[in-house]
Amino acid sequence: MDMKFFEDRRTVRQYTDEPVTDAEIERMVRLASHAPTTGNMQLYSVIVTRDEDMKRQLAPMHFNQPTVEGCSVVLTFCADFNRFVRWCEVSDAAPGYSNFQSFMTAVIDTVIFTQQFCTIAEMSGYGCCYLGTTTYNAPQIAELLRLPRMVVPVTTLTLGHVAARPDDCGRLPASAVIHSERYQDYTPEAIREIYAEKESRDDSHRFVAENGKQTLAQVFTDVRYKREDNEHFSRIYRYFIETAGFPFPDKK
Amino acid sequence: MDMKFFEDRRTVRQYTDEPVTDAEIERMVRLASHAPTTGNMQLYSVIVTRDEDMKRQLAPMHFNQPTVEGCSVVLTFCADFNRFVRWCEVSDAAPGYSNFQSFMTAVIDTVIFTQQFCTIAEMSGYGCCYLGTTTYNAPQIAELLRLPRMVVPVTTLTLGHVAARPDDCGRLPASAVIHSERYQDYTPEAIREIYAEKESRDDSHRFVAENGKQTLAQVFTDVRYKREDNEHFSRIYRYFIETAGFPFPDKK
Repeated sequence: MDMKFFEDRRTVRQYTDEPVTDAEIERMVRLASHAPTTGNMQLYSVIVTRDEDMKRQLAPMHFNQPTVEGCSVVLTFCADFNRFVRWCEVSDAAPGYSNFQSFMTAVIDTVIFTQQFCTIAEMSGYGCCYLGTTTYNAPQIAELLRLPRMVVPVTTLTLGHVAARPDDCGRLPASAVIHSERYQDYTPEAIREIYAEKESRDDSHRFVAENGKQTLAQVFTDVRYKREDNEHFSRIYRYFIETAGFPFPDKK
Repeated sequence: MDMKFFEDRRTVRQYTDEPVTDAEIERMVRLASHAPTTGNMQLYSVIVTRDEDMKRQLAPMHFNQPTVEGCSVVLTFCADFNRFVRWCEVSDAAPGYSNFQSFMTAVIDTVIFTQQFCTIAEMSGYGCCYLGTTTYNAPQIAELLRLPRMVVPVTTLTLGHVAARPDDCGRLPASAVIHSERYQDYTPEAIREIYAEKESRDDSHRFVAENGKQTLAQVFTDVRYKREDNEHFSRIYRYFIETAGFPFPDKK
């Protein structure tokens, strides 16, 4: 295996009209399902949106990112305890999974599975794009996809044949995310050094200018990931998770 | 790329004494950091435990699973908004990430990164094992690893050179986790069919017998993932996440 694949991979948002077949999706799901999973419980499902009208309805739930209507299929990955609980029900077993810890277990299973699928799809020559908007508009997504109780949307991939491959968008140095034995907190000087390359990129300068900001971090705090949006969608996601059958515990 | 890797991979719990070098860990972290991440924010850190005394202290936090003391390194993967917030602080930007939605964003980033690391490690010939106990005993883990505010343990990998490769533990059929356009809920008959192969395995019969149960599902509900444990650890994890700087929103 040529490990260069891992640093050369790109998120792909633009696809040709050629479809990704159901047989290909099933092949890639089958391979991805061998990824690790808590107690081999496989607490996830994936909903495949291929129908154009369904994509049109999904699009606003992802803030009309063009990749939703422009892809071959949209794949919504859900934390799913429904299937497991139904197995308990036919097995004379009393499930105890209506709680926050079980939700988190299913979220971790789901994201492991999604990333394994993403790697398999990319290695198969397809392009993928994650949609982080899934946790924002989970209630509307769940209604459209008719998700039952104990099934919660966690993340989404758009999938298709690659039409355009973007340039590398850069990453922090590996040393910035590794801590030996204990977490070494960052001094202001260390932070400036870690983010120096990111801030010096041409596209970063463009983002700052286009948004009329002084620093790159302000583009994140004031434009892309704002406090009021985060707080608004926190309430919505929390309420949805609880009504979906995973009530949060009272405080200690 | 031979895609058979993905179905032949195994979780490995037994390792030789040969160490995995720091250079190798840095190489694999660097490759894995090219995995997708929300807004390219890379909201994760990994703490490397190599010191034998630190492993001994970590072991009970993972219920003394032998893989903790038996591996070359333990890698604790944490949702980390601390580094990003410190960057905001030196950039005259006001961060708005002390909320549940931001926590979930960082969790998803962290698990994507962890799974990419796991795949890279396995493709490099090493063995890995996820420890789901990380979300149970997060407070003790955080104290030992001196995690600051806004850094929350999400999952753990043990890593080493493979000493013993376990047999395939089987997976549900791919069709069981794929839904076309809308979620098709499972009838009792469909559930029995989906789980038939799993239930018929020799190791499943052994689990049921060893635990004095009637059905395989009861091994999960009554022994491995019990309601009272899930509820207990739900309270602990919720409380920890909130005190770590991600207060949960009030109900709608």
